Amino acid sequence: MQGLGNDYVYLDCTREMPEDLPALARRVSDRHFGIGSDGLICICPSDCADVRMRMYNADGSESEMCGNGIRCVGKFAYDKGLVGKTSLAVETLAGIKHLELHLEHGKVSAVTVDMGVPTWEENRVLTIQGEDYTVTPVSMGNPHAVLYVDDPGAVDLPRLGPDFEHHPSFPNRTNTEFVQVLGPDHLRMRVWERGSGETMACGTGACAVLVATVLNGKCGRSADVDLLGGRLHIRWDEETGHVFMTGGAATVFEGELIEE
Amino acid sequence: MQGLGNDYVYLDCTREMPEDLPALARRVSDRHFGIGSDGLICICPSDCADVRMRMYNADGSESEMCGNGIRCVGKFAYDKGLVGKTSLAVETLAGIKHLELHLEHGKVSAVTVDMGVPTWEENRVLTIQGEDYTVTPVSMGNPHAVLYVDDPGAVDLPRLGPDFEHHPSFPNRTNTEFVQVLGPDHLRMRVWERGSGETMACGTGACAVLVATVLNGKCGRSADVDLLGGRLHIRWDEETGHVFMTGGAATVFEGELIEE
Repeated sequence: MQGLGNDYVYLDCTREMPEDLPALARRVSDRHFGIGSDGLICICPSDCADVRMRMYNADGSESEMCGNGIRCVGKFAYDKGLVGKTSLAVETLAGIKHLELHLEHGKVSAVTVDMGVPTWEENRVLTIQGEDYTVTPVSMGNPHAVLYVDDPGAVDLPRLGPDFEHHPSFPNRTNTEFVQVLGPDHLRMRVWERGSGETMACGTGACAVLVATVLNGKCGRSADVDLLGGRLHIRWDEETGHVFMTGGAATVFEGELIEE
Repeated sequence: MQGLGNDYVYLDCTREMPEDLPALARRVSDRHFGIGSDGLICICPSDCADVRMRMYNADGSESEMCGNGIRCVGKFAYDKGLVGKTSLAVETLAGIKHLELHLEHGKVSAVTVDMGVPTWEENRVLTIQGEDYTVTPVSMGNPHAVLYVDDPGAVDLPRLGPDFEHHPSFPNRTNTEFVQVLGPDHLRMRVWERGSGETMACGTGACAVLVATVLNGKCGRSADVDLLGGRLHIRWDEETGHVFMTGGAATVFEGELIEE
């Protein structure tokens, strides 16, 4: 399944749990000798929510949460009949996340995820390779630095990204978003992810971008955000302060590993 | 399926043929939004052989033949019961190719392919970036330049490869193989493929390497050749002059595309 091109192998573990999940993740993720994916996501029973999601990166390390991944977890759980409702609670290593499933022809086509309450700091100026950049620091549980450019497509991310990521102003390193404001409800961005480099989409990054752009008075509290992998809709609820992310989730193929 | 890490999506087209194969190839090959592969290979009925193989690259262009792919075609045809014998003739755009299937527990584990008769020219010296390299030009239907190095792992292929590929001595450009002789029946190589750059394995390249190394008196007519993606066994038959390549073929997973 994929959400904005972020592709994982999803495994129904509600009845049976494979033994060595890190090894299985490495095996299935290999793009030439395995199925090929960004990692493995297991849908498991939960004591405190409707389902539990456990996710492993391609290198076998366990991850807390993934905005593109959890939307697919919602689709998997509903389309496969593991749950029979469209409001779901999903247990993750980052806590319980709440999902609203949107149906089309009886299947999930998009999912809204409650991404929680952001925190932020004052804008600050970073000097990178001799140039000054004004960034807005926003945390969605993980750190982001948001800045504005005329054309995200023209930014030399491989050259600039590492210097933002490792800037002394962010001692825990940071994700960095390069944003163009297309209108009061339409943003465009590219993201340099901490530890991963440029990726096609980053859910927490899109949320941080909407929050920062509201704070900077450049857009309303609800906007489409275009990333390389596709579009997310982000809404920052005025009453509760929560950020809601809506985006697609797609099943690409189904099958079984062959043991020979 | 994959052969030495060269992975294609294989489709049984003996009963039904999809309409737009180039479009299907692009769709299934995408590694984030599709199944993810080097391309699509269709197993079709043939008028003049046991099966016919049609192969499409990830960009939708049709290809003539692929040594790693045709081994998987043999495995697919036998394991799926499309053929009931272990000597197969496969129609390709490069002519009819002959395969010997090797079974393990009733399934194909390795395949020998008759790669035809090589041609070659005298060794020549190429000056690349100020250094002289002696290469042996061998054609397996496509051009190869074979040279010897102490340690293929230490060669800076991205720096050197393009200059070999585009050297004026090879007006149609050339594949280039960097070879270490480990013993009279054991070679190690890395390959820079014309138009593709470094790849994990090149079947015709391994054949050209064995032929060149026999011609240069550095190995016998039968040897294991280690590539990044795995091992091939190459034999240059003295009687017929044909080169035979034996290597693995593996089914990784089976399934169906989901249309939503």
